[in-house]
Amino acid sequence: MRQIDARESPRFAQISTFARLPLTQDLSDVKAAFFGIPFDDGTTYRTGPRFGPSSIRQGSRLLRKYNPFADVEPFEQLNACDWGDVNTVPGYIEDTFTVIKRDMKSVASKTIPFTAGGDHSIALPILRAMNEVHGKVNLVHLDSHYDFWDNYWGKKYTHGTWLRRAREEGLLNEVIQVGIRASIYGKEDIEDSKKLGIIYYTTNTTKSETDSIIRHVNSLKGKTYVSLDIDVVDPAFAPGTGTPEVGGLSSFEIMDLVRKFDLNVVGMEVVEVSPPYDLSELTSMLAANLLYEGMSTLAKRMERK
Amino acid sequence: MRQIDARESPRFAQISTFARLPLTQDLSDVKAAFFGIPFDDGTTYRTGPRFGPSSIRQGSRLLRKYNPFADVEPFEQLNACDWGDVNTVPGYIEDTFTVIKRDMKSVASKTIPFTAGGDHSIALPILRAMNEVHGKVNLVHLDSHYDFWDNYWGKKYTHGTWLRRAREEGLLNEVIQVGIRASIYGKEDIEDSKKLGIIYYTTNTTKSETDSIIRHVNSLKGKTYVSLDIDVVDPAFAPGTGTPEVGGLSSFEIMDLVRKFDLNVVGMEVVEVSPPYDLSELTSMLAANLLYEGMSTLAKRMERK
Amino acid sequence: MRQIDARESPRFAQISTFARLPLTQDLSDVKAAFFGIPFDDGTTYRTGPRFGPSSIRQGSRLLRKYNPFADVEPFEQLNACDWGDVNTVPGYIEDTFTVIKRDMKSVASKTIPFTAGGDHSIALPILRAMNEVHGKVNLVHLDSHYDFWDNYWGKKYTHGTWLRRAREEGLLNEVIQVGIRASIYGKEDIEDSKKLGIIYYTTNTTKSETDSIIRHVNSLKGKTYVSLDIDVVDPAFAPGTGTPEVGGLSSFEIMDLVRKFDLNVVGMEVVEVSPPYDLSELTSMLAANLLYEGMSTLAKRMERK
Amino acid sequence: MRQIDARESPRFAQISTFARLPLTQDLSDVKAAFFGIPFDDGTTYRTGPRFGPSSIRQGSRLLRKYNPFADVEPFEQLNACDWGDVNTVPGYIEDTFTVIKRDMKSVASKTIPFTAGGDHSIALPILRAMNEVHGKVNLVHLDSHYDFWDNYWGKKYTHGTWLRRAREEGLLNEVIQVGIRASIYGKEDIEDSKKLGIIYYTTNTTKSETDSIIRHVNSLKGKTYVSLDIDVVDPAFAPGTGTPEVGGLSSFEIMDLVRKFDLNVVGMEVVEVSPPYDLSELTSMLAANLLYEGMSTLAKRMERK
Amino acid sequence: MRQIDARESPRFAQISTFARLPLTQDLSDVKAAFFGIPFDDGTTYRTGPRFGPSSIRQGSRLLRKYNPFADVEPFEQLNACDWGDVNTVPGYIEDTFTVIKRDMKSVASKTIPFTAGGDHSIALPILRAMNEVHGKVNLVHLDSHYDFWDNYWGKKYTHGTWLRRAREEGLLNEVIQVGIRASIYGKEDIEDSKKLGIIYYTTNTTKSETDSIIRHVNSLKGKTYVSLDIDVVDPAFAPGTGTPEVGGLSSFEIMDLVRKFDLNVVGMEVVEVSPPYDLSELTSMLAANLLYEGMSTLAKRMERK
Amino acid sequence: MRQIDARESPRFAQISTFARLPLTQDLSDVKAAFFGIPFDDGTTYRTGPRFGPSSIRQGSRLLRKYNPFADVEPFEQLNACDWGDVNTVPGYIEDTFTVIKRDMKSVASKTIPFTAGGDHSIALPILRAMNEVHGKVNLVHLDSHYDFWDNYWGKKYTHGTWLRRAREEGLLNEVIQVGIRASIYGKEDIEDSKKLGIIYYTTNTTKSETDSIIRHVNSLKGKTYVSLDIDVVDPAFAPGTGTPEVGGLSSFEIMDLVRKFDLNVVGMEVVEVSPPYDLSELTSMLAANLLYEGMSTLAKRMERK
Repeated sequence: MRQIDARESPRFAQISTFARLPLTQDLSDVKAAFFGIPFDDGTTYRTGPRFGPSSIRQGSRLLRKYNPFADVEPFEQLNACDWGDVNTVPGYIEDTFTVIKRDMKSVASKTIPFTAGGDHSIALPILRAMNEVHGKVNLVHLDSHYDFWDNYWGKKYTHGTWLRRAREEGLLNEVIQVGIRASIYGKEDIEDSKKLGIIYYTTNTTKSETDSIIRHVNSLKGKTYVSLDIDVVDPAFAPGTGTPEVGGLSSFEIMDLVRKFDLNVVGMEVVEVSPPYDLSELTSMLAANLLYEGMSTLAKRMERK
Repeated sequence: MRQIDARESPRFAQISTFARLPLTQDLSDVKAAFFGIPFDDGTTYRTGPRFGPSSIRQGSRLLRKYNPFADVEPFEQLNACDWGDVNTVPGYIEDTFTVIKRDMKSVASKTIPFTAGGDHSIALPILRAMNEVHGKVNLVHLDSHYDFWDNYWGKKYTHGTWLRRAREEGLLNEVIQVGIRASIYGKEDIEDSKKLGIIYYTTNTTKSETDSIIRHVNSLKGKTYVSLDIDVVDPAFAPGTGTPEVGGLSSFEIMDLVRKFDLNVVGMEVVEVSPPYDLSELTSMLAANLLYEGMSTLAKRMERK
Repeated sequence: MRQIDARESPRFAQISTFARLPLTQDLSDVKAAFFGIPFDDGTTYRTGPRFGPSSIRQGSRLLRKYNPFADVEPFEQLNACDWGDVNTVPGYIEDTFTVIKRDMKSVASKTIPFTAGGDHSIALPILRAMNEVHGKVNLVHLDSHYDFWDNYWGKKYTHGTWLRRAREEGLLNEVIQVGIRASIYGKEDIEDSKKLGIIYYTTNTTKSETDSIIRHVNSLKGKTYVSLDIDVVDPAFAPGTGTPEVGGLSSFEIMDLVRKFDLNVVGMEVVEVSPPYDLSELTSMLAANLLYEGMSTLAKRMERK
Repeated sequence: MRQIDARESPRFAQISTFARLPLTQDLSDVKAAFFGIPFDDGTTYRTGPRFGPSSIRQGSRLLRKYNPFADVEPFEQLNACDWGDVNTVPGYIEDTFTVIKRDMKSVASKTIPFTAGGDHSIALPILRAMNEVHGKVNLVHLDSHYDFWDNYWGKKYTHGTWLRRAREEGLLNEVIQVGIRASIYGKEDIEDSKKLGIIYYTTNTTKSETDSIIRHVNSLKGKTYVSLDIDVVDPAFAPGTGTPEVGGLSSFEIMDLVRKFDLNVVGMEVVEVSPPYDLSELTSMLAANLLYEGMSTLAKRMERK
Repeated sequence: MRQIDARESPRFAQISTFARLPLTQDLSDVKAAFFGIPFDDGTTYRTGPRFGPSSIRQGSRLLRKYNPFADVEPFEQLNACDWGDVNTVPGYIEDTFTVIKRDMKSVASKTIPFTAGGDHSIALPILRAMNEVHGKVNLVHLDSHYDFWDNYWGKKYTHGTWLRRAREEGLLNEVIQVGIRASIYGKEDIEDSKKLGIIYYTTNTTKSETDSIIRHVNSLKGKTYVSLDIDVVDPAFAPGTGTPEVGGLSSFEIMDLVRKFDLNVVGMEVVEVSPPYDLSELTSMLAANLLYEGMSTLAKRMERK
Repeated sequence: MRQIDARESPRFAQISTFARLPLTQDLSDVKAAFFGIPFDDGTTYRTGPRFGPSSIRQGSRLLRKYNPFADVEPFEQLNACDWGDVNTVPGYIEDTFTVIKRDMKSVASKTIPFTAGGDHSIALPILRAMNEVHGKVNLVHLDSHYDFWDNYWGKKYTHGTWLRRAREEGLLNEVIQVGIRASIYGKEDIEDSKKLGIIYYTTNTTKSETDSIIRHVNSLKGKTYVSLDIDVVDPAFAPGTGTPEVGGLSSFEIMDLVRKFDLNVVGMEVVEVSPPYDLSELTSMLAANLLYEGMSTLAKRMERK
């Protein structure tokens, strides 16, 4: 599909869809769709990600059609569109999961969704949908946190527990975590995750051994889902987020990582963008660019075949 | 047309059109259309109003369908829509005027436009279009400034000179100014405007003699255009604007004024909303509510007939 | 109990409890306690009130011990303290209601709680607790919204439906609403509320007939609960809130109203303070002052007896 | 002297002096001079007023030469200039007082200073200078606070104690306070001030009996100094201040008061503007306008003679 | 010339000229002058750079006289001053170009201008002036964008087309671009630029091959102009800009680059600083420091001769 | 002592002490105590650090008990607490020094203080207290500035002169400065510092020779105090500070440095956090994390013995 061209209609004019692409739920021939999940009741600290999709759309107004790094025109090659948002149910995380899974299943069976969250809890219903459509998938998880805790205040579903649930529910094949650095509640948190076959790279390792991590990631066999929590990036580059951890990746580093992915990707999400804590749409712009790079690697890979 | 209902789809979800109304340029049967003019090259101090339409749409997400003050459902009664934005030409104020006039003429010949600016210079091409469609119109001008200067830096077209131009070009019948209070360049500024038959009420008078001003305004015979510069309001209520003047109306007072208008209105504009200087969409929300009240008075008047 | 004195320890020093009062859950001899409910999953638009109690404590650091308007020293006369916060359960509104009701019942049976929300949904479990401790109570409800909708997205519990629930559950005697002005979903919204015996005053009436409203409120017989949604105030005075409605009361007007209350009050709440949207703690300061005035009217009334 | 004309050089261009007036310390023939005192070590809560003069200059860029309310051109009639700033001594309040008094004495012996603070503690050395130049003066003090406390943390000099010191040092004749409303440390605070012959009007009285207060103020015989603490205004209109008190005057009301002053004024100050807490120069603009109105009343009075 | 010394007059006191240098248009013996061009009608997305010069002056208040990296005292060695600002013509980009060229020609014929923009469109009239004074010059262009598009909305002059115009007008010798990374409208954009002999280094190359790029730049023969668009830096370091591109240089990296330049420089500009989008003058401070480093390399080079 | 567990009581609930640790001045068995010094009268540019301790406590709410980098549980191993704040004396830097020294001496004789400033001038009374408790100590000083100037405006005590004073008073053994980069008043500034045996590493060296600097620091014999000025970090990562210098360390780099320290530490401070200039508590979070890492290295070292 065709973006509105900024040389004809100024970027600050007209309705904001993702990258100024058409808004449609007709996904025939669409190979990639922007998919919004405005939700933040899974957050354990600051809220705000319910405005993530809306703000990422605003932050995407500068994206131009040709990506010189990937040498592709992702929107045209993928016939990409903006699908709109899931109608979430504030206050009711489990009901919201039902709606997300339903909509995502419908979308993922027709195209490859590029999701803008929402807090990270949405990954669970997304992975449930992926599982129903594709069977078990690999997970590439970029985050400063393990998200592998058992529960918060006795509740199984939060943005810090989805990965353990996904593992327990048998939705996943291999899991690789990249960028981990947050303090945790105890040594056993790491051991639990190791026992369940999850491999992680800390932020330090991610910075010093980037190439080898990329090789590991790209060696994954089979369908793979990419979950990117914006707090994997340092809060200087992504201040608009709810549980920031200092000492993270730069925006250059995260862009570089995502650009080098070469995966059989069945979906990608950028979550935890919290506009009320952002500055001048900085974080939303980064999220928009990361989805753009994700689409670009897909376009490149498709082109190659 | 039908708004997206906030009880079904949360206000923070989906694309932001004005009041979550359908986006369309098909104006058959449409009695009122939101019309965006993102432009700010006419500003003499702070810029920003090019983001006015986009931000007013965001600020309109809380508007509900029934207005208890007017006892109308303006959107349904007027079959209202969001027309989209004019594609302005940054850097070229006169070329932009050409485009605005063209688009406005097309719209105003079919429906009643409720325009979101843009800086106040856009009033000139709008009035030119009104003149071509309706002949001379009256002007109700709410503002803290006279906007009647002859020129700035030798140029005839700015947000401070449009009214003198409109007068000179013979576009207007009666002109009533409400809320004037800014310091000026000389006593002759007022005298010039008086000579040309412009009647003004200061902010002080507007506050102390509201009812009599309303009566004066509502006594206007014939087609009338309403131009509301958001800086008529005190900057505490509308910080997001470019040439603020302290000591203005409260948002309660401006809402009260607009609610009491009973005019043969051919169009209304809210201009000079400058989102970069705003706080938490305060000014954009006020602008959205003023357009809503404008539509409501129109719906009420139509109903009465 | 004794505040930390700002003439001995600067206001910017030491831990922030409400008004720098002692933090304790021992309520023997305590006649008024600050009670925090950090929660925002009942919000239908912007979140943020989970930081309300924390921010209102910061905003209370300027409160001095003697209130010249009421001619009382509320903290000393009431032996006031800061009780701390309820441990809410993000993502689970109904579980949170259980915890709030339990804690509130325990507190309300010993002292008079002055609650800092939290979004307005918390009023329901509070009123349930009040009902168990005191039986049916009257409600004085200051708000820009009716909060009387039946449901949002099919759910019974949100910050817009608590009042209908409280009515249905038979928790309330007389209900007086003050400051109402928001647009609504239909005419029937008002009629429903009237049928259930709820009396409301619009913002316009509140401004023009203040004294008569005060008389009406003060004529209430029996135990009365005061629920103040900060959005009854104009967003210029209270920008930090989630569903702002322009054209509201000034901070002078709301302070004046609350100062004139003379009620057999069993509790008071200030809700919907959303710090991420605030400026320089403006809204939190106003909320802190309103709780201070509430305590002062209580102290004055106690003194009189 | 002559302002830079905004119709020739845009307001956003060139160096910011007060109202774009010449910067000079040659005061021969100058009847009014802007005088900056960047200092904030007298603050007991938030700092920031050291950036007051700089920010008020920025906020003055919209002032035009003719004031229609007063029907004067204050800058030309008074041959006004910007004197520059006192070189204060951070960390050393008493040394700073020495420097302020020295510079103020030099200025006040030649012209009428319109001072931009700085925190309110600067009023003490200013009044000492006034006393040396003019003998005892009357004081019109607009503020939300009494500023009459004896000491903070055992220290005699803060922004809350200057008035008691000035009284004790015998610098003042009559003192009228307008706009008082803050909570205080005890009933004796008021009684002390009454004993010392200070008359005060609360914010409530100021709003309801404006005309009679104006008459009282204008009845003052002899030389009079006007001290305006920006926190007399409600923080919605002046968020950029250090010890805000909700429920204050609007900017319309304070402008109205100052415009009606008709005094034998020997100087005026606007203090407690704290730019780090401001929004879009709102508070600085108000301060600039208040100094402009002060100069205008002076020009009008001079004209009359 | 001599800066005001921060050890004598605090940095927050007195009028803000660049680096607190004297303001003068007498350029005899002046070897470097700060030159402000407040203009933003060439912007295609966010406006704001009209406040660039004013804000960069504020951000320059921390610059001290001795630069330990370069081991020079640039202001004294160059006898530097602040020339003031060009009086631009908002709304009329081509008229503004005329004024800029006229003023720049006058300045560049006497001294070396260090320009604070303004949006990037100003580079065109500057290069026209350079051409008239110096003949063809080389261009070192640091930017995230090519700025080589043919037109926007049919117009030849914007901040995205100046370089193509300068090439077409034959103003330039060699052109080296550093830091390029933005997405573009098509592959042909790059090819066009290559055809016209423009050499570019992407952000990736700039980071990995810094030394070789520096050598290339420093090998330029003849007079050279340096144009630095602040968006070459990552928006985390320079949030105050209009068309930010994530994944850029850090402020350490850009400072390092500029410090290593050893060029026969005839002028330098830092453009696209947009204060309304900035945080705590972060971007303005960086711009001020870059101009300071530019002056320092000039002083060092002069010293060496 | 035991933190409040975020899995039981949400992070946004309850009173904010450092890392949600108990507030107590009973230091028996306490091996590390958070110690707040809210003070900013030593600042020479922007103020604000008087809110440092309060904001760093807010920013510490995300710290979890186990530090995977150090493989320790610092709070439990050190039995850490929050001591509260010193009651400073605004306006009187020398009186404040007396109070700081008294309180610090009392604390340092019982435990190891981890201080949150406050501006950097507080280091002088802290070092005086250290000297009385421990005799001469080494100093590891991380900063962008030398802080070795003789005086500002004739005064010996500011945040830019404390190190020279400490040297002159004979409080220190070896001094190593890390991260220096600011422009200075003259070449002699460096020479003076060298003469007095102070060794410094610039930011450039710190980045390129990290390991060798760490070895140098860790080779210090005897008791050592660590003073970390947050402006050693680039303002992108720490915008909330008063005299920022661009081109600094990233938060990753400063965390990495502090994590590698292996010192006989007698105290650590993080100073110059200025919340009014911060964004979303970014700087406060970084400061909280740095204190956490400091405690962790202490816990690790203690464990080893």
